[in-house]
Amino acid sequence: MWKVLVVGIDFGTLSARAVVVRVSDGAELGSAAVDYAHGVLEPEPQWALQVPSDYLDALRAVPLALREAGASPSDVIGIGTDFTASTVLPVLADGTPLQSSSPHALAKLWRHHAASSQAARFNAVFASEQWMEMYGGLTSAEWEFPKALQVLEEAPDVYASMGHWAEAADWIVWQLTGTYVRNACTAGYKGLYQSGYPSPALLAQLHPDFGSFAAQKLDAPIVPLGTRVGGLSASGAALTGLREGTPVACGVIDAHATVAAAGAASPGRLVAVMGTSTCHMMVGSSLRPVPGMCGVVDGGIVPGHWGYEAGQSGAGSILAWYVEHQVPASYSATAASEGISVHTLLSRLGDGRPVGSHGLVALDWNDGNRSLLVDHALSGLVLGQTLATRAEDVYRALMEATAFGTRTIVTAFREAGLPVESFVAAGGLTQNPVLMQIYADVLGMPVSLIGSAEGAALGAAIHGAVAAGAYPSIQDASAAMGSVRRDVYSPDPARVSGYTRLYAEYMMLHDHFGRGGNSVMHRLRSFNTSSTAGDTSC
Amino acid sequence: MWKVLVVGIDFGTLSARAVVVRVSDGAELGSAAVDYAHGVLEPEPQWALQVPSDYLDALRAVPLALREAGASPSDVIGIGTDFTASTVLPVLADGTPLQSSSPHALAKLWRHHAASSQAARFNAVFASEQWMEMYGGLTSAEWEFPKALQVLEEAPDVYASMGHWAEAADWIVWQLTGTYVRNACTAGYKGLYQSGYPSPALLAQLHPDFGSFAAQKLDAPIVPLGTRVGGLSASGAALTGLREGTPVACGVIDAHATVAAAGAASPGRLVAVMGTSTCHMMVGSSLRPVPGMCGVVDGGIVPGHWGYEAGQSGAGSILAWYVEHQVPASYSATAASEGISVHTLLSRLGDGRPVGSHGLVALDWNDGNRSLLVDHALSGLVLGQTLATRAEDVYRALMEATAFGTRTIVTAFREAGLPVESFVAAGGLTQNPVLMQIYADVLGMPVSLIGSAEGAALGAAIHGAVAAGAYPSIQDASAAMGSVRRDVYSPDPARVSGYTRLYAEYMMLHDHFGRGGNSVMHRLRSFNTSSTAGDTSC
Repeated sequence: MWKVLVVGIDFGTLSARAVVVRVSDGAELGSAAVDYAHGVLEPEPQWALQVPSDYLDALRAVPLALREAGASPSDVIGIGTDFTASTVLPVLADGTPLQSSSPHALAKLWRHHAASSQAARFNAVFASEQWMEMYGGLTSAEWEFPKALQVLEEAPDVYASMGHWAEAADWIVWQLTGTYVRNACTAGYKGLYQSGYPSPALLAQLHPDFGSFAAQKLDAPIVPLGTRVGGLSASGAALTGLREGTPVACGVIDAHATVAAAGAASPGRLVAVMGTSTCHMMVGSSLRPVPGMCGVVDGGIVPGHWGYEAGQSGAGSILAWYVEHQVPASYSATAASEGISVHTLLSRLGDGRPVGSHGLVALDWNDGNRSLLVDHALSGLVLGQTLATRAEDVYRALMEATAFGTRTIVTAFREAGLPVESFVAAGGLTQNPVLMQIYADVLGMPVSLIGSAEGAALGAAIHGAVAAGAYPSIQDASAAMGSVRRDVYSPDPARVSGYTRLYAEYMMLHDHFGRGGNSVMHRLRSFNTSSTAGDTSC
Repeated sequence: MWKVLVVGIDFGTLSARAVVVRVSDGAELGSAAVDYAHGVLEPEPQWALQVPSDYLDALRAVPLALREAGASPSDVIGIGTDFTASTVLPVLADGTPLQSSSPHALAKLWRHHAASSQAARFNAVFASEQWMEMYGGLTSAEWEFPKALQVLEEAPDVYASMGHWAEAADWIVWQLTGTYVRNACTAGYKGLYQSGYPSPALLAQLHPDFGSFAAQKLDAPIVPLGTRVGGLSASGAALTGLREGTPVACGVIDAHATVAAAGAASPGRLVAVMGTSTCHMMVGSSLRPVPGMCGVVDGGIVPGHWGYEAGQSGAGSILAWYVEHQVPASYSATAASEGISVHTLLSRLGDGRPVGSHGLVALDWNDGNRSLLVDHALSGLVLGQTLATRAEDVYRALMEATAFGTRTIVTAFREAGLPVESFVAAGGLTQNPVLMQIYADVLGMPVSLIGSAEGAALGAAIHGAVAAGAYPSIQDASAAMGSVRRDVYSPDPARVSGYTRLYAEYMMLHDHFGRGGNSVMHRLRSFNTSSTAGDTSC
């Protein structure tokens, strides 16, 4: 039994990691990562490019992981991959990356933000389209369409040469199998696919040559998650050291793969991937209007269900900003002498006191607000400082603010008729027990933790197991192979009560500054016309 | 002519400074300071005591200053003193300080805050008294009445033994001349004297034995500023090295003496003494209701005019708090390597950019708001932070917030029909040219600077010259001897316009959080019931 394995490969921002996973129970038996040789190229501010061949080279991680697992290629019955998104590249009709001296010939990483002016134009043109509600009314500069329009406008030769504008998530599968399909997850969340693409007439308003974009450059079958795209090709086998013909699943976005890894691929289980920003994903059995979603996609997380994605643009980023720019030297010295991070020190110092004893309330909008307000021009606020306020007080207020932001999202799901029965946290911020306890107390519900440190790769492996036919569905595979530590943090009733009071204060400020009571944050942005609001998305 | 001199003696918090001043033009010819031997005694939190004999001992500064000036006692035609206030002490009927082991027998320094519970009771009892409008409706714990009630309640023996509850400002003059009077300035601003004291019936509500307080313990003639109380007594001559019989002026509060030193002893000239907190003083020719004053006193600054005093409880204190608790190590290192203070570094880094380019607006309420809102439970706010916000941005926003706070006061004077024709800054914060330019641009009027580094002592000397008969009035003496550098900082029209926009944002937040739109700051204080709002006063 232990010899029946799958390989999950997570293509991250700087490296790819392969994990060898036992099909029966999801045990991770071996793991290896390979950095991308060229990393992230940033020829200009806001740009972020990658070299497609780096992705292929990073497949060397697979035999390394297999060796660590003490397994052989014949043990592997399936392969799954996940990718950052929208990371897109122009390729010829046969999938070959373009050869050109133009930087536009390279892959545009998810955090390439140089198409923000194009995104603004999409938002103007799409403003009255009904289907934009599925995206909270906002097209991000990170998505397929604005990035493609940037290529058309800045490098028309590259645009003309490309046969496909391919998500890297789909391109890598193409390289492994020889078959090109688009997975429903990326197409829906990053490609504006809602039973169809935006119409040619609409697209032509942006540029006369853009009307044909979807039909020409995105043309490919869209397949449900877990689909077996094909068997490993000869070249794919050479790249991975696995056997030709091994089933390969269609691609998936990394965060969305994590849902399966967290054992949360069924309705009512909200997964929050908490890092620099936070993505909240939940499977829903029905389509309900929920304000401020990043995306609502049919089959976007598991086939047959609606996949809801919400997001907080600032989370770890706000805490990191604070530690870097607002914490005095004495804390760094103390943290160093104790061998802990400043984050850990500040978290500990502010912990154990009565709720609200710091006298502060903050808004977590330093990088705008994605869900629910969908307003990137909003900004931060800290209220209640006295001369006795210390760095640990503000730090705690900022941690609480991100938890309050999550509570607005949980509340919105519930009010839309989508129960949130459990909360599973994943991502780097789960390493902070003080933060996790705050979330439990603010949400008034237990916080479970994903059991795997490589949630995306485990999720990809689960998809691979489904593609191999080991399980009939992602839900079944997730139930068997996913890993969650249930209710690691339990809410304390007294603190829940205190935070309910503090949340009411947060919401008054939230609504006043976020819903038009006082649009000072917008006006302050316009004082400085040379700056542009940061573009962030789920 | 140059041999006609006066001596001004400024009794500060930690030392007394004597300045020898030429009567004809106010030139400061010599200066010396002597520290108080016992400094400030703080037997418990909130307490701040001084030893009265230290004040007498510090008169040694006079001969030192005379020596530096190359002058002899026969050149000195008058003496003036100023003092911190309300700094009060219990004395026998003849002025001898009480001898007792009780700490209540010592002088209570202005910043002794241990009578805050008594102050709260005064505020309750006085709430509906018409004359409380002269104090913005608030009795400070720093003033004579709460401090005396604390003595009565905690050390009834001391209370019973004392013949007078004397302001140190009046007691030192008593020691120099043998004559006890109360000066109109201290009596008015710190002793609740408005043509009379609070009634015995009112006082008895606080404690049955307190009804007689004013009549028994404050009984003394109240004299106008500049009054010659008497000639230097034999013992006074021994203490100062000056000639017996030299005219001595009545006392005055240090900040109020500064008005004369700044050449601003006539209507329309607002003097701001800017330090930890800021005191704003202006002479007015009529009595007008101005909201949120710390005190409006007939003859409180110059005889025959109304003296208006307003205050901002936080100014330098907020900037100092920020530098100590919210500025990262890299700034300290840079400042040290350049040999400048972190304040200077932050001021420079944030300077020269377009108004509002930091995208921030702050409220200067970290220590509550004295004028205009008279609400010590208010707290700070910083709004507009992004991930690009740096320490110099917040520092500048805080500097601007204090300037906006000053603008609310200037506006209140004007709206009350009291023109503010010039703005003269004094105090430690005048050392920061970036801050001073912000004030000019925010106020839309030139900022003049007091010419003397020892404004209070020069002011005391001016009072001494009037007492000596060298000038017919404080106004005349101030015009001849005061020192002001006119219009050192001129408003820049473009920046004035920018700050008018930003001030409008400040005022929206000011009114929303300060006038009941959202009382979140009050509620946040009550979350932490163990903390008490800081008590601060002008």
